[in-house]
Amino acid sequence: MEFDNYSRAEVLEKLFALWKPGKQTELVPLEESLNRISAEPLVSRFTLPLVRSSGGDGIAVRSADFEAALPGLPDTAHWKPGKDYVRADTGDDFDDAFDTVIMIEEVTFNETGGLSLTKGITVTPGMNVNGRGSAIEEGELILEAALPIRSPDLGALARGGLWDVPVVKKPVAAFIPTGNELIPLRREPQRGQNIDTNSIMARHMLLEMGAEPLILPIIRDDPGLLKAGLLAALKTADVVIINGGSSKGADDYNARLLAELGECICHGVLAAPGRPLCLGVVDNKPVVNLPGPIIAAYFGMDWCIRAILCRALGIPVPVRPRVKAVLTGNTGRTLPEGFEFFYRMEVTKTASGYDAWPVPFDRVPGKRTQGFHSGQCVMKGPHSPSPGDEIEVELCYPSITTAPGG
Amino acid sequence: MEFDNYSRAEVLEKLFALWKPGKQTELVPLEESLNRISAEPLVSRFTLPLVRSSGGDGIAVRSADFEAALPGLPDTAHWKPGKDYVRADTGDDFDDAFDTVIMIEEVTFNETGGLSLTKGITVTPGMNVNGRGSAIEEGELILEAALPIRSPDLGALARGGLWDVPVVKKPVAAFIPTGNELIPLRREPQRGQNIDTNSIMARHMLLEMGAEPLILPIIRDDPGLLKAGLLAALKTADVVIINGGSSKGADDYNARLLAELGECICHGVLAAPGRPLCLGVVDNKPVVNLPGPIIAAYFGMDWCIRAILCRALGIPVPVRPRVKAVLTGNTGRTLPEGFEFFYRMEVTKTASGYDAWPVPFDRVPGKRTQGFHSGQCVMKGPHSPSPGDEIEVELCYPSITTAPGG
Repeated sequence: MEFDNYSRAEVLEKLFALWKPGKQTELVPLEESLNRISAEPLVSRFTLPLVRSSGGDGIAVRSADFEAALPGLPDTAHWKPGKDYVRADTGDDFDDAFDTVIMIEEVTFNETGGLSLTKGITVTPGMNVNGRGSAIEEGELILEAALPIRSPDLGALARGGLWDVPVVKKPVAAFIPTGNELIPLRREPQRGQNIDTNSIMARHMLLEMGAEPLILPIIRDDPGLLKAGLLAALKTADVVIINGGSSKGADDYNARLLAELGECICHGVLAAPGRPLCLGVVDNKPVVNLPGPIIAAYFGMDWCIRAILCRALGIPVPVRPRVKAVLTGNTGRTLPEGFEFFYRMEVTKTASGYDAWPVPFDRVPGKRTQGFHSGQCVMKGPHSPSPGDEIEVELCYPSITTAPGG
Repeated sequence: MEFDNYSRAEVLEKLFALWKPGKQTELVPLEESLNRISAEPLVSRFTLPLVRSSGGDGIAVRSADFEAALPGLPDTAHWKPGKDYVRADTGDDFDDAFDTVIMIEEVTFNETGGLSLTKGITVTPGMNVNGRGSAIEEGELILEAALPIRSPDLGALARGGLWDVPVVKKPVAAFIPTGNELIPLRREPQRGQNIDTNSIMARHMLLEMGAEPLILPIIRDDPGLLKAGLLAALKTADVVIINGGSSKGADDYNARLLAELGECICHGVLAAPGRPLCLGVVDNKPVVNLPGPIIAAYFGMDWCIRAILCRALGIPVPVRPRVKAVLTGNTGRTLPEGFEFFYRMEVTKTASGYDAWPVPFDRVPGKRTQGFHSGQCVMKGPHSPSPGDEIEVELCYPSITTAPGG
């Protein structure tokens, strides 16, 4: 069995030359639009405030009363609320009889509703008043096209009256776990059996990537069953992931299946874990055969499936924040030239920067023993990373949970 | 109306001295445990593989056959599958008759099932065989206590047979929008009305923070209704957020309400937007009155409510990745001493680093016009930030979406 020698970039380039995703959009209620991708520039339907409003907490008064009293202040001790002034807090509308706002800090109320004002203040028309449209104007851009909608955006879209939001349709991503040895969750494994760990991981990774996951039942290593399973998945899915069976040596079901039903683009990529990845296009839909080991499946999902789903969603692939870190453990590898190696890293903050500890392959993912941020990195051969080396690590999560006392 | 002059840190210190959250835990199905917080160290129930398994794709053979043939190789041309060897791919169990694995790259199969092997290979007992427990052992730590469960962890927990996961119970956070001017979503605003933008934003921020949101209907600015609403919320919620009415000048309902029902810790914090924040404890539950303007509510949720919820969950407050950036716009502020000012920033990657453009307060949040990463920063007075200044910006999202062509 010989593998192709394509880099990850080459594999994706070949795929994107062959596969042209159609962009489908739909309207979703604003309440369900979080993390969806805007399908067009989203602009306000409303102008707010509709008329001017108070720009601070205070009282609205007539500036004419103050002009008439110049060079002093009017006698406000017997003023009546509603007649001579009204309370007007930030954002409040007030009667058109009034035209200017005095901040509450300058006002002391007496028992009868009259006022005393800070001596020497000047009151002119339109003070502390926000004009019509000062919050937002009809037609004003709120969010460009092709951006993910985040929680603060929901408030901005609500202000603009976007009760239903045009978003890119979620690509449906089918995930087919395969293997004679696999058993579903909630069974006790017997000799020779492996738990299907990857379906639950893939389901949540797909959700996080903005896809609609379609997790299918385990299929045994049988060419007929695999073919039927793939054809069934292609009926509803936009992308199909077959997990396992990518390195079945002489049997090599899946590469042959792709070539039979469509086009097999590659079998083998210059990256590990996950070298035997097999990728093709059937019915203008990407079909990816990811290797079965959990860490290979994780990285295949992370770089390959993410790139495919971003393409389907019409957005660029996200780039994670990166930090320089000192490698604190042994990777146990000498990396050959042209190869990319992925490592999960436990990243911890030190006084001078960051430390990164490579999680052993056979225990990955798991054993998160530090109350801190998890990262990962790609190392390119030829290279023998050793403890003490400075490496660049991607931070995988939105925030760093500091270690206790950190 | 005078505000207290406490820093954010002082406000939280006072709260945490007075409020002692009880840690409650529950068992949830593994399938629903994503982003929950582990309540105890999570250890494997299983040892896998149960017996040894193949460590690569190949064939399992008897090492004794190879010892007997030394210094050559046995005559394998007439070997029979099942009798003299069996296929054994990565992770596969194989019959106890065999004790070692030859990698598939060294094997060529002939038409009758016999083999030819690469000349000169040596075959010894236990080659390419992973021992019992090489993937995971019973009692082995998978995840420490007080860590968020992430998608790759789901695979690791599945491998360990944690079908039900002990997690920290989600704190229930009630959110009460208040204000005579507020109207719910899906109504057309009339003169003097404002859309309740904050409930939908808060709901999703609370979900992201790991709380169970309880978004309550809008309450008018009426002390009796507010009191009844707060008391009702306290029956089911662990934390109550009253939004709006925090700076009602002489009326100051909410601060008085907190003092009447429990203890008012502060009214006013040396940070803006959101200065009039009011915070207290009622029935050993934090009650926070966040100012109504959307940007003030956003930042109050982000620093104050997040800190409270992390305390309730028993985890440290997350720290976001930070980058140095060049300020590209005018903040329009001279910051007084002792004050913290929050800014939402549009962060873009440049050839030499990052640019950060401050989003104007009255338009925030919204107007995301760049296909890139949103950040925010805290500036401390005395300081007059000017374009060209180097500032430190927090990156708020897990990944940076590169601008088209970026």
